[in-house]
Amino acid sequence: MTISKGPQAFPRTEYLRRLDLVKAEMARRGVEVLVVSDQHNITYLTGYTARSAYVPQGLVVSSSQEEPIFILRRMDRPAAIYQCFMDQEKIVSYPEELIAHPQLDGYDAIIDYLLDAGFSTSGIGIEQYNVSTPTFDKFRKRLAEAELIDFTKVVAWIRLVKSDLEIEVMREAAAIADAAIARAAEVIRPGVREADACSEIAATLIRGANGKPGTQLEPLTLCASPRTGTCHITWAEDVFRNGSQVNLEVAGARHGYASALMRTYSIGTPSDRLQRVHDIHLEGLEAALETARPGATCSDVANAFYRSIEKRGLKKESRCGYAQGIGWTEPTASLRDGDLTLLAPNMTFHLMLGNWIDDDFGYVISETFRVTEIGVDVLTSSPRKIFQLA
Amino acid sequence: MTISKGPQAFPRTEYLRRLDLVKAEMARRGVEVLVVSDQHNITYLTGYTARSAYVPQGLVVSSSQEEPIFILRRMDRPAAIYQCFMDQEKIVSYPEELIAHPQLDGYDAIIDYLLDAGFSTSGIGIEQYNVSTPTFDKFRKRLAEAELIDFTKVVAWIRLVKSDLEIEVMREAAAIADAAIARAAEVIRPGVREADACSEIAATLIRGANGKPGTQLEPLTLCASPRTGTCHITWAEDVFRNGSQVNLEVAGARHGYASALMRTYSIGTPSDRLQRVHDIHLEGLEAALETARPGATCSDVANAFYRSIEKRGLKKESRCGYAQGIGWTEPTASLRDGDLTLLAPNMTFHLMLGNWIDDDFGYVISETFRVTEIGVDVLTSSPRKIFQLA
Repeated sequence: MTISKGPQAFPRTEYLRRLDLVKAEMARRGVEVLVVSDQHNITYLTGYTARSAYVPQGLVVSSSQEEPIFILRRMDRPAAIYQCFMDQEKIVSYPEELIAHPQLDGYDAIIDYLLDAGFSTSGIGIEQYNVSTPTFDKFRKRLAEAELIDFTKVVAWIRLVKSDLEIEVMREAAAIADAAIARAAEVIRPGVREADACSEIAATLIRGANGKPGTQLEPLTLCASPRTGTCHITWAEDVFRNGSQVNLEVAGARHGYASALMRTYSIGTPSDRLQRVHDIHLEGLEAALETARPGATCSDVANAFYRSIEKRGLKKESRCGYAQGIGWTEPTASLRDGDLTLLAPNMTFHLMLGNWIDDDFGYVISETFRVTEIGVDVLTSSPRKIFQLA
Repeated sequence: MTISKGPQAFPRTEYLRRLDLVKAEMARRGVEVLVVSDQHNITYLTGYTARSAYVPQGLVVSSSQEEPIFILRRMDRPAAIYQCFMDQEKIVSYPEELIAHPQLDGYDAIIDYLLDAGFSTSGIGIEQYNVSTPTFDKFRKRLAEAELIDFTKVVAWIRLVKSDLEIEVMREAAAIADAAIARAAEVIRPGVREADACSEIAATLIRGANGKPGTQLEPLTLCASPRTGTCHITWAEDVFRNGSQVNLEVAGARHGYASALMRTYSIGTPSDRLQRVHDIHLEGLEAALETARPGATCSDVANAFYRSIEKRGLKKESRCGYAQGIGWTEPTASLRDGDLTLLAPNMTFHLMLGNWIDDDFGYVISETFRVTEIGVDVLTSSPRKIFQLA
């Protein structure tokens, strides 16, 4: 018995459009067949979001075939049939024996496929930054007559400009992020365990908003006093206290896409320092958003923020954000000084203005926005304030 | 101002014990200094669990120094000071300019450190499977006179045998997994959205059990009819129905350690096929647990299961589980045919008997266990039944 294709996040034409962009880059670079290893690029080109990337898998895009071939572990084939846009004969599985095998792994099956399909002397694109040295060496040895051409980040650069359909999905995810930020304001209270508040925030991220559930749960970080100088950690085994400050970062998620959002909460009146830092960042945030438009560079946006806060005596060492989409952070354009990527309509960014000023003091605010024809459209809509809680 | 060290999951002596084991392996392999890139190995050797591994970071273990040096992004240094057992001068940060830099990255800072510290002609251990080809080439070029020695999975093999302190943490995590399995039985009902049930299950995984919260949230997979043949996917945008079968996999998590657990639910009376498959798997599960003891091999345990179910006409293509601990699946011992790893006391495994028999039918059951002096101690304690729901 076979499994049917599930509800699709995007129509077939959308995936074919994305594949055409990839094939055009392949042609430019002399790549006849491309092996996509990066799991987020696989999501982009197929719709597959299952969590199987801890074992080898590869999407084989051939310049002469409309649909790609997805080669993955036997166990994961039904999920791929269910999720991917392609016909099910395009989902090829390798045997379970290759899992935890002492010598072989799924990449051997991918190389077997390339050899069988007649690509032994072709230009073969490989995402070198996504495979380890021993894996790359295996490609070199077993495909000694092929030309291996690095394709690192090429698909990710194509992902940078979204379609209107992708924007719609990111807008749904942004509404979920907003719901979680609002829920946090209801559950962060003195005496409440950080974990109990986070359980409610996580539950909201899954329940979703506007009838659309989150389709996966992205990590959430909550850094409360005395840990506001940290980022990227989860809740502690502690309770909130009167006077506590809480820095929260969440992302709503739909079909692999994330829309992230940060806000700062204060139990009781914010300290003068926190209020001042917020006021300065808010001005900087507005300056950055006013700068972002087609033709401006990522560097321009970052420097608008830096200039604004430096005028008032603050600094931020880290970048001001990054391209955002599938898998949260995209590894391409960065809102940093010196990044000369020109903004274009439907690029999406997390304007991430978290600022960990001292080891024991940090503050966070952010927005997810898309570039429009004339400026920006902020997808998230939570109040830009310090949430003051009783 | 600096941040204080936070509450520690393990005493300093525990980390020094682990480091001594690593240093003994370094000595055996001619490694004077080791660069640990694998995030789970870093957790093991320091206590650090923050989610910063999407940018380069490395733990430098020197045979002549008691404490390792942790080199990571500037932004993440406060979290490392807070979480790691080492003195804070052992936490070295690289500047934010290296993030999304067009030529350089954090590995350049790690190589700079090795050069400055006099290791330019040393035996340097590298986890080759954890670094990409371009990164490894950078090590080769900039440390041309050093001998680079592959240390892939060496620390993971040390992790295989847990201390009693680690077992205690995994037992706490197992209780959380049990709580989530029980909560699922309360919330899976006909007409309920899969996402709403999962929001409650996730909330339970964070709230924890016995006063101990989950300290992070591991991915949960819920595959309900008509998707029981899939694994590794999350909830769908659908509701449960009368007659639905639900396959659930969760993991409780404490301090980076996961204890996983799978159970199958049936809304209404299970089908004859499901009941039969359950009965056969239960017998196989017991056969596997009876076989597991010091001196038996991983292969013995797997084959006890395979033989038991094959006698009754079933097969399972995939392995029967894997070593479990930090980061859920450990990449070492595998409960598979041919894995001759000898079981020893305090090894911990996820006996994973999920069986995706047809593309449209699968069944799951599992336990997390540790090997004792004479047999096994099952850490999870949920009833081994199909949860039949009204």
